[in-house]
Amino acid sequence: MSTIMSTSRNQRCALVIHGGAGTISPDRLTPEMERDLRAGLDQALAAGHTVLQDGGSSVDAVVAAVRVLEDDPLFNAGRGAVFTSAGTHEMDAAVMEGKNLAAGAVGCVKGIRNPILVARAVMEKSSHVMIAGEGAEEFARELGLEMAGQEYFYTAQRWEALERVRKSHAEKSAFSDQDRHGTVGAVALDLAGNLAAATSTGGNTNKRPGRIGDTPVIGAGTYANNKTCAVSATGDGEFFMRAVAGHELSALMQYGGMTLEDAARAVIDNVAALGGTGGLIAIDSEGNIALPFNTTGMYRGSVGVDGQTSIAIYK
Amino acid sequence: MSTIMSTSRNQRCALVIHGGAGTISPDRLTPEMERDLRAGLDQALAAGHTVLQDGGSSVDAVVAAVRVLEDDPLFNAGRGAVFTSAGTHEMDAAVMEGKNLAAGAVGCVKGIRNPILVARAVMEKSSHVMIAGEGAEEFARELGLEMAGQEYFYTAQRWEALERVRKSHAEKSAFSDQDRHGTVGAVALDLAGNLAAATSTGGNTNKRPGRIGDTPVIGAGTYANNKTCAVSATGDGEFFMRAVAGHELSALMQYGGMTLEDAARAVIDNVAALGGTGGLIAIDSEGNIALPFNTTGMYRGSVGVDGQTSIAIYK
Repeated sequence: MSTIMSTSRNQRCALVIHGGAGTISPDRLTPEMERDLRAGLDQALAAGHTVLQDGGSSVDAVVAAVRVLEDDPLFNAGRGAVFTSAGTHEMDAAVMEGKNLAAGAVGCVKGIRNPILVARAVMEKSSHVMIAGEGAEEFARELGLEMAGQEYFYTAQRWEALERVRKSHAEKSAFSDQDRHGTVGAVALDLAGNLAAATSTGGNTNKRPGRIGDTPVIGAGTYANNKTCAVSATGDGEFFMRAVAGHELSALMQYGGMTLEDAARAVIDNVAALGGTGGLIAIDSEGNIALPFNTTGMYRGSVGVDGQTSIAIYK
Repeated sequence: MSTIMSTSRNQRCALVIHGGAGTISPDRLTPEMERDLRAGLDQALAAGHTVLQDGGSSVDAVVAAVRVLEDDPLFNAGRGAVFTSAGTHEMDAAVMEGKNLAAGAVGCVKGIRNPILVARAVMEKSSHVMIAGEGAEEFARELGLEMAGQEYFYTAQRWEALERVRKSHAEKSAFSDQDRHGTVGAVALDLAGNLAAATSTGGNTNKRPGRIGDTPVIGAGTYANNKTCAVSATGDGEFFMRAVAGHELSALMQYGGMTLEDAARAVIDNVAALGGTGGLIAIDSEGNIALPFNTTGMYRGSVGVDGQTSIAIYK
């Protein structure tokens, strides 16, 4: 009965997720890997959409979806985080609520199983918006969040990627940007009409320890505002930071009068004009969604206001 | 001769600086302290404006001005940085160039004499926009930037502030927000028509180690774009981050058609609506300047396109 009420004509919910954008080609992606990646996206969509259908908040939904992707070793966040140049894992994550512009973020944290949960705790249980490094780790421990040793984050795939990137740096040759970066994220509209965004990443393979990308920067890789949209970005983080991508998309809608679709495309064009590649997912308060990217692929999925699920990788 | 040419009708330069906003009252500020604060602002203005008059870039000018304020123990940045709850000094800084949206930032760095110089090095000598903590300190050492021991950052005034804040937290009573925060910043227009912004801070007294405020967040406390304006903010950083203050000001001009003055005021009103206090300095490509704040005072100074110098503290 409550389900019927909550899906009545005036109440709509929708969820969009991504698992990173880059040079993704069928030659490199085996059928088995593609199947596993699609299964991971499907599981994340299901986790988030169940929350929405049950009348849960958009924040609960995006955190639930991102958490699934953090636990999946195939995506560059949480367990599957890439290696830094020091052979460590440093993760960034952020969450933002559109109804009150509340936000929380962590930068370059180590040894935390689900960085998105610490970002949420920063939003809800601290007076701060962003905490980095050991300070954030201590905060996570104080709250009793689950920590994880270095071995939890070891995946052969990411270690080989570090070795390829180190080698290619030495040889000054090109390497796949699939080896370099990746990010996971989710944006949602809940039945109460509230938007939220969440993003989590291990950053770039072989990155300098301490590097913070666009993911935990409110307004760059993560942004939500009920007046406009919720956004989560992936790609060359530095270009998304310089373009203040998430807030730019919002401003193009709020002050430029653009639709979500046009604004999302314009932001990716801005990032491209600066020299960056990547993509983003965005949703507005009507449940319109946009998933533009200027790479060959972006792992992505959505459940629209019509309840239709879609998962895709290539253009 | 070059001076005459460089100040001809079509070429204008201007510089605005701030040394923090807060509850500043004549009861608490002795005439001697006010004199010293004004002298510090005057010295920073002179350092930056000399660069501009000599045909130097806006980036050189804002970095020169901020560096003077970092070296002055009266301002909460560099030498005068406040103490964290751990009794340490963790500093944030950022710089951005309006002509190409290049940007560099450091978050919670310790033991670096001039964080603004590391932020500039991140912009010019790394592929990153933001580096935090030990990674940034290592980067600074690699570049041979000047480090400084804990004793360099010790000032009796800041230590007493930490004790007052700790005591007032224990007593749940109010304390002056002058004890809590403060930031320094500069924005400039150079003779070539390029804008730049720089900001540096020790953050909040008694802050949790690892807390990163709006200062090093591109689009929040620091932003520059030749199409619109250069901005440096000060105040309750978390609210400026949630408002994406710097980029919001730019967007209100670019897409909302507002003047610099109106957009700057609107941003401070947005921050106030979220519950935050503070101020900002901004300049546009015509050399118009705005210095709004919703506190009782903001240490500030400017040299306009007419060459007139102005220094003020109260409303």
